Amino acid sequence: MLCALAGGVGAARFLAGLIRAVPPADVVAIVNTADDETFHGLHVSPDLDSVTYTLAGASNTAQGWGLEGETFAALSALRRYEPDTWFQLGDKDLATHIYRTRRLREGAPLSVVTAEIAAAWDLGLTLLPMTDDAVRTRISVEDGRELAMQEWFVRERSEPAVRSVSFAGAASATPAPGVLSALRAADTIVICPSNPVISIGPILAVPGIRDALEARRSRVVAISPIVGGAPVKGPADRLMGPLGIEVSCVGVAASYAPFCSTLVIDAVDAARAAEVEALGVRAVVADTMMLSPDIAAALARRALAAVA
Amino acid sequence: MLCALAGGVGAARFLAGLIRAVPPADVVAIVNTADDETFHGLHVSPDLDSVTYTLAGASNTAQGWGLEGETFAALSALRRYEPDTWFQLGDKDLATHIYRTRRLREGAPLSVVTAEIAAAWDLGLTLLPMTDDAVRTRISVEDGRELAMQEWFVRERSEPAVRSVSFAGAASATPAPGVLSALRAADTIVICPSNPVISIGPILAVPGIRDALEARRSRVVAISPIVGGAPVKGPADRLMGPLGIEVSCVGVAASYAPFCSTLVIDAVDAARAAEVEALGVRAVVADTMMLSPDIAAALARRALAAVA
Repeated sequence: MLCALAGGVGAARFLAGLIRAVPPADVVAIVNTADDETFHGLHVSPDLDSVTYTLAGASNTAQGWGLEGETFAALSALRRYEPDTWFQLGDKDLATHIYRTRRLREGAPLSVVTAEIAAAWDLGLTLLPMTDDAVRTRISVEDGRELAMQEWFVRERSEPAVRSVSFAGAASATPAPGVLSALRAADTIVICPSNPVISIGPILAVPGIRDALEARRSRVVAISPIVGGAPVKGPADRLMGPLGIEVSCVGVAASYAPFCSTLVIDAVDAARAAEVEALGVRAVVADTMMLSPDIAAALARRALAAVA
Repeated sequence: MLCALAGGVGAARFLAGLIRAVPPADVVAIVNTADDETFHGLHVSPDLDSVTYTLAGASNTAQGWGLEGETFAALSALRRYEPDTWFQLGDKDLATHIYRTRRLREGAPLSVVTAEIAAAWDLGLTLLPMTDDAVRTRISVEDGRELAMQEWFVRERSEPAVRSVSFAGAASATPAPGVLSALRAADTIVICPSNPVISIGPILAVPGIRDALEARRSRVVAISPIVGGAPVKGPADRLMGPLGIEVSCVGVAASYAPFCSTLVIDAVDAARAAEVEALGVRAVVADTMMLSPDIAAALARRALAAVA
């Protein structure tokens, strides 16, 4: 059995490769929910949905978010009532949020609703939110404001300089049912190529999860989301730097070293392998640019073999 | 000032005429909310929306419900999660329900949300729900089941024979703010051509409203929704008969006589005027088939003049 810690799009692409490399039923993905947000009263789980839609082959790959062939009739109509709508919600995507919100209001935990949605999309793997509790990333920016993740990332295009990041609710959160047992039972734990600060960071902030990884350090392998000194996608550079993490595979290694024995770095960073290893993290060089599911599957095989 | 008791489409067409006949700002419409239903966790107010969309010129007149140019992408996508979705909710229509639901969950009373929605559509008249409380029409049918209005009307196409009708929650409901004062202050109270049993009936079942009409009986005029022994639209015949109300303008007169001095009947029913008047209700003959807003405006003028 394999366990994967996952954020959004990068993780989704890696997981699409992973379930080509191993039987999907053997994979448990533990997904960040600290980016979850309520829009128009609807509970949106961006990372869970990115993973679900990508694995179902339904995501809009050109756009990088949302569903293929999406329309925005409802959102356009909502602007009549709420003019300053800045978060894009497609009509098909809305259906997921409407369903999730109804089930949560009925009292179903997020983990149960997530399993229902995964089943509806015929995902072969197990998808778990990191917690059923509300944990929310808060980003303090230079002008003194504290922003929700989507406010900073989407509304303000990651522009305000970051002072600090916190995960509201994390201290009192509990891992979702199945999370700790999966981490304990897994042959291998993969940290997907996701934002270390705001995708993997919140998962590790849920009490018990980081300890579980530390206890399995020799079986934990990460894929660096930083290639050639820049994130493959997303705003990781805008978050790592201000928090004192070098924007490089070496910075990722330094950050993950306490609980991760092995880091897969891209071929373009091969020259930095010695620096990674100096941190006590084994460096494995591979092609990490997942331009196709086949490349992602090869990357997954390489990562698994590295800690086999 | 004029007050109108209103159900759905028939009332909406009449109101569209009424606000051509008098300044819209002088009109307060009190709308049935006993057909309200929760679909997918969203609060749907069919009669309020029919009135709003019709008065805004945005309704799908060919179809008889919903918005013009509507699409159904979200509902199609929802079927992935909830296969037995039988209530049609268009994408643009969903925006109204999403907004209303959010505001209600925030604690806003339905009357406040209704005013917000009316303002967003630039309706000139005042739209009031009959009550801010939950009143729900329950229809007992011959096989012993008790159905919600939309279950009977939409899901089961008005087919199950009706035994009885009740309005759950009515006894403890309070008229929405502004309802009783409008009924007391109005020069004329118009009962729109709506289903007497399940559109006007629930409004009258809210304690205080029927008394307010009785106290103003000489100024209350109704338009018969039954023309030539059949409803112009909708299932009134399937409800009036089993409840002992003749499916005719005479049956409407008998039902409204305690609180209504004047009934506008269609020209095709002119021969029954004497029967109406024998019930103590003045009969006024007019063209009640509102094939255009101009005809509706003429009908409104005729009704107002009848009790002037």
